[in-house]
Amino acid sequence: SSSTTPIKATLFPGDGIGPEIAESVKQVFTAADVAIEWDEHYVATEVDPRTNSFLTWESLQSVLDNKVGLKGPMATPIGKGHRSLNLTLRKELNLYANVRPCYSLPGYKTRYDDVDLITIRENTEGEYSGLEHQVVKGVVESIKIITRKASMRVAEYAFLYAKTHGRKKVSAIHKANIMQKTDGLFLQCCDEVAEKYPEIEYEKVVIDNCCMMLVKNPALFDVLVMPNLYGDIISDLCAGLVGGLGLTPSCNIGEDGIALAEAVHGSAPDIAGKNLANPTALLLSGVMMLRHLKLNKQAEQIHSAIINTIAEGKYRTADLGGTSTTTEFTNAICDHL
Amino acid sequence: SSSTTPIKATLFPGDGIGPEIAESVKQVFTAADVAIEWDEHYVATEVDPRTNSFLTWESLQSVLDNKVGLKGPMATPIGKGHRSLNLTLRKELNLYANVRPCYSLPGYKTRYDDVDLITIRENTEGEYSGLEHQVVKGVVESIKIITRKASMRVAEYAFLYAKTHGRKKVSAIHKANIMQKTDGLFLQCCDEVAEKYPEIEYEKVVIDNCCMMLVKNPALFDVLVMPNLYGDIISDLCAGLVGGLGLTPSCNIGEDGIALAEAVHGSAPDIAGKNLANPTALLLSGVMMLRHLKLNKQAEQIHSAIINTIAEGKYRTADLGGTSTTTEFTNAICDHL
Ligand SMILES: CC(C)[C@H](C(=O)O)[C@@H](O)C(=O)O
Ligand SMILES: CC(C)[C@H](C(=O)O)[C@@H](O)C(=O)O
Repeated sequence: SSSTTPIKATLFPGDGIGPEIAESVKQVFTAADVAIEWDEHYVATEVDPRTNSFLTWESLQSVLDNKVGLKGPMATPIGKGHRSLNLTLRKELNLYANVRPCYSLPGYKTRYDDVDLITIRENTEGEYSGLEHQVVKGVVESIKIITRKASMRVAEYAFLYAKTHGRKKVSAIHKANIMQKTDGLFLQCCDEVAEKYPEIEYEKVVIDNCCMMLVKNPALFDVLVMPNLYGDIISDLCAGLVGGLGLTPSCNIGEDGIALAEAVHGSAPDIAGKNLANPTALLLSGVMMLRHLKLNKQAEQIHSAIINTIAEGKYRTADLGGTSTTTEFTNAICDHL
Repeated sequence: SSSTTPIKATLFPGDGIGPEIAESVKQVFTAADVAIEWDEHYVATEVDPRTNSFLTWESLQSVLDNKVGLKGPMATPIGKGHRSLNLTLRKELNLYANVRPCYSLPGYKTRYDDVDLITIRENTEGEYSGLEHQVVKGVVESIKIITRKASMRVAEYAFLYAKTHGRKKVSAIHKANIMQKTDGLFLQCCDEVAEKYPEIEYEKVVIDNCCMMLVKNPALFDVLVMPNLYGDIISDLCAGLVGGLGLTPSCNIGEDGIALAEAVHGSAPDIAGKNLANPTALLLSGVMMLRHLKLNKQAEQIHSAIINTIAEGKYRTADLGGTSTTTEFTNAICDHL
């Protein structure tokens, strides 16, 4: 109830449609009487010399202090030398695991029924090392880094997640038949952790085969854990099975219990400010944040309201084939609470 | 007709189910009166010192001499230090482009209708460089190499393919937002080649988004060209859309007009020798080989016979839900000729 001392949480509304969908989250959370006090931070218009990026020092500090936050889409300013702000945030805050649940939304039909997948992506290294150079003219190389440290912690997170969420199986996704050393080390870490969870089924699946099986029969999988780029690819593929990134939440996990929930779709500048955006991914990410905070009752209440609104089908935004505005859709969710 | 001087072609029946499905191809080709003289080569049981692999020197020479061949699945002997024979063949013969058409087979229902995609994969470098090492204990790296030479030739092949096959669009698949130098060079080469084909629509698509769009709506794509690993992943994903690797052909293209058609599924040791294997992927690969040889009439005749047999549904192997043996299925195709 609103008399509880509010929990402070960082909010990055982000760019483009970000502020509108963040508004929707605030409205729904208020309607559900969630005792959250938002500490709002926007992307700066100039580089902050203390972070050397468009992310202000205060905003990073806010996440470190609150240990919990919610993030909308951030557009990276165009021009040479700017790294994606989404990535900068993950790296600066050492958000080592990216959890993306993909499940069929009742009432929203795709080619697939009853999808229920959790992808857990290593979020700090691999192909995202940023190490690249020209060897000679016309020959360039990129370096993929896999460490025991990062692989162990994401593997541990994945198995712990599986156990605490009543999941039956963890699949480690790899291409160790080609990258024997890097993906081999990743698998070795997964093997080691799997030993400690005899109750969880464990398998290793080559990424190409995994993608083929996912489109043929996603029910073969449950929790999937993998290096950074494979996670990037497979989480989008899985999102596609249930309707796309506009409908799927995510949460980034860091050391010391930090959790930054994030809508991973784009900032959709073409429809920004037009009250047309679908806030579902950010709302569901907000639900993940509430679950992380153990505010389970309100999390389930909001979750049901979102699901029921979409299932009912009366109020849907344009991306789902409807004609509702963001506000109408948000109001409908509040009415379902 | 059979009075034509036969064209010599190399045949690698391969391992596991390989010999059985190769037998099926020979039978169908004979029934269709294709004037091919097969030069058959098997994987050796010992390393050939002249090639330093289980591929004999004679077998490689045969492809170089005949400039055309057909290959079944090869199992790589287990044990340290053996590179995949499939890859060795691609590298040794400089087979720079791997073409994998994925199209819906009439009468074989999947979740997707009317899929018609061509993936063209760079086949010699990228993440498959084999360059890997341990930096310090617990830290390993793999090196991805992209060269202008290999990128140009695969891009040129893709656009030429699109033009000569009446295709409308080429999509270059990449992750240049992260690997700006390597994937950036790949894209730059595609850009350059695209300039020479103003009649072909050209777009660049980030791999994660590509996978999401492929599962949502494969009709958005036509010809896709990409670096090695992305090609590995996306070609399997596309195969999954239409039923899997048992149904999709491929052809490897090398310099000097060399073409080695290849069934890219596994050797399925569990069903080997049991007359249960589905020869479709190797048969359709054989059809690609015939088209490469401009034996278009017989290619279309055999193609129709395969398609019609599957569509009719009376004779299907177990993987397609039927009870036919390889022989029964093959006989049915011959009857449809
Ligand atoms: C925007 C891009 C750099 C990012 C990534 O590759 O991780 C995105 O695709 C994601 O998955 O969050
Ligand atoms: C067997 C394996 C090494 C190979 C590859 O990765 O290229 C296979 O997946 C393929 O696509 O032909």
